[in-house]
Amino acid sequence: MGLLTVTAEAGEEPQGKRGLCGAVLFLPPRSRLHTTQVFELLSVQLATAVWDILLLQCSPSYTRVACDKAAGSVVARTMGSRRRLLLVSNSTLHGGTYLAHCQDHIRAFLGEQVKRVLFVPYALHNRDAYAKTAREKFESLGYGMDSIHESSNPVEAVRKSEAIFVGGGNTFRLLKALYDNGLITEIRKRVLEDGTPYIGSSAGTNVATISVNTTNDMPIVYPPSLSALGLVPFNINPHFLDPDVNSKHMGETREQRITQYHEELDTPPVLGLREGSLLLVEGDKATLLGVTGARLFMRGKAPTEHMPGEKFSFLLMDS
Amino acid sequence: MGLLTVTAEAGEEPQGKRGLCGAVLFLPPRSRLHTTQVFELLSVQLATAVWDILLLQCSPSYTRVACDKAAGSVVARTMGSRRRLLLVSNSTLHGGTYLAHCQDHIRAFLGEQVKRVLFVPYALHNRDAYAKTAREKFESLGYGMDSIHESSNPVEAVRKSEAIFVGGGNTFRLLKALYDNGLITEIRKRVLEDGTPYIGSSAGTNVATISVNTTNDMPIVYPPSLSALGLVPFNINPHFLDPDVNSKHMGETREQRITQYHEELDTPPVLGLREGSLLLVEGDKATLLGVTGARLFMRGKAPTEHMPGEKFSFLLMDS
Repeated sequence: MGLLTVTAEAGEEPQGKRGLCGAVLFLPPRSRLHTTQVFELLSVQLATAVWDILLLQCSPSYTRVACDKAAGSVVARTMGSRRRLLLVSNSTLHGGTYLAHCQDHIRAFLGEQVKRVLFVPYALHNRDAYAKTAREKFESLGYGMDSIHESSNPVEAVRKSEAIFVGGGNTFRLLKALYDNGLITEIRKRVLEDGTPYIGSSAGTNVATISVNTTNDMPIVYPPSLSALGLVPFNINPHFLDPDVNSKHMGETREQRITQYHEELDTPPVLGLREGSLLLVEGDKATLLGVTGARLFMRGKAPTEHMPGEKFSFLLMDS
Repeated sequence: MGLLTVTAEAGEEPQGKRGLCGAVLFLPPRSRLHTTQVFELLSVQLATAVWDILLLQCSPSYTRVACDKAAGSVVARTMGSRRRLLLVSNSTLHGGTYLAHCQDHIRAFLGEQVKRVLFVPYALHNRDAYAKTAREKFESLGYGMDSIHESSNPVEAVRKSEAIFVGGGNTFRLLKALYDNGLITEIRKRVLEDGTPYIGSSAGTNVATISVNTTNDMPIVYPPSLSALGLVPFNINPHFLDPDVNSKHMGETREQRITQYHEELDTPPVLGLREGSLLLVEGDKATLLGVTGARLFMRGKAPTEHMPGEKFSFLLMDS
């Protein structure tokens, strides 16, 4: 295998992966490149290349990408990420208390090794009050909690965290604050490379995905991009709502809105997570938890219904 | 009155207004400047200035702005715009057909002088089908219709238009297309300076306001800004929906979403237009039409209810 060394166009060069890689190339998520394009990017000619398998660093959402010369194409494909995510549709279920409907899942997810959780309260205006609510809940589950807004150095707080919980509220406000505080890269690195457990609820689930294009929230502020943490290569629509056949309101149904998204080119799958549903992601495996099921929307296909316990690992691989 | 000539920082220098103006200064919408800041912007010292009243050109949403030295402050204030707007909450009312609930208002608004209307179908994916629907309706009302997507030069189509109708759909898609086609400045100029009648429905109403921060739509694409046409200096929330007391859904109510917007600094009023409501704007006068009323949200104040026939002219002045 010939070793090619290239300068990355964006992002940081991955640490400790040079031994695995024939070359390092940074690609946007969901990249699909013909091998000739790869060679153009690498500034070498196909004829002069000597290699069998090229391992690529793909930014932002993929750990490594396999490129097989024989296949004639490169498909961005998550390989070997250490990620562990618990993506919750909603913080509070009707008639219940804060996080009560998913507290057993949270405990099972964090286990006994995690002692303290870092809370990200950016999605709500009153961060102190929000942190108090979250802290009381997590302490009742046996975990200490630090809120990132109480830290003088948010990036360092992420760097030191054992686990991260990003709460719900307004997705635009949350994403803008993540960018403003320089946290996108650091959270992504901790989750994808270090395996730091990530819990997201509602807006915190939106920002965990490839983009916030399928949030339900009002765009009360303007983030520098709709691209999000990209911990998974698809979109989630939290609080997914089935059409109300008795409604006289003429605004678009949720399904119509997601269909409009899929009228745009190259849009990824959207998993509509009903209130009461959660998605557990462990490496390259994804499992639907909770009681209410989910509805999956793929561009150009009819939506499909999915029951608790079903696997969604194909959404992680088929990018 | 001393004549000060300054170079505008943004936008075009207004045509034909030099005779009226002591100085020309471009300000963002809702600007509130102390006079000393105005002089800083004009690069002159307070002591050396000789003036009584300074007329300022305010971009993007104000025609002219009065600045009184004695008052000690400058408040951006719409003066003398020739605008005529009919801003409709929704295209179709439950149980009705396309634009049926507001067709009498459209006819009264356009009158008999307008012969042809320019349609902007950018908010929906299938522009041909959308133009067909709109054309059939407007022809039934006695107006010819051209669709801007059928023109090889959209800016020129706006320039020649007798009246403009911007249809509903996805607000983000619509706003991005207006920017992509270079239409923001041209539509604003035609409406504010030439008095070209503008009809907006749903997303078309959103983009007529100062920004799309209070749209209900999903951010399926990323426009270069959330600032919109700025034909009025406040926000509208179309399809405004009162809370459903029987709902078990835990997503934010419309009122909660608007309240979150007003948690942000310097956010303008939001007029929640229920389905079946319209706002008629003529120069500096605004009147609520339709049958369902509206709910007005002002930052730091309790929301207020408003009945058809009420005047909202203060929203145009108190900026």
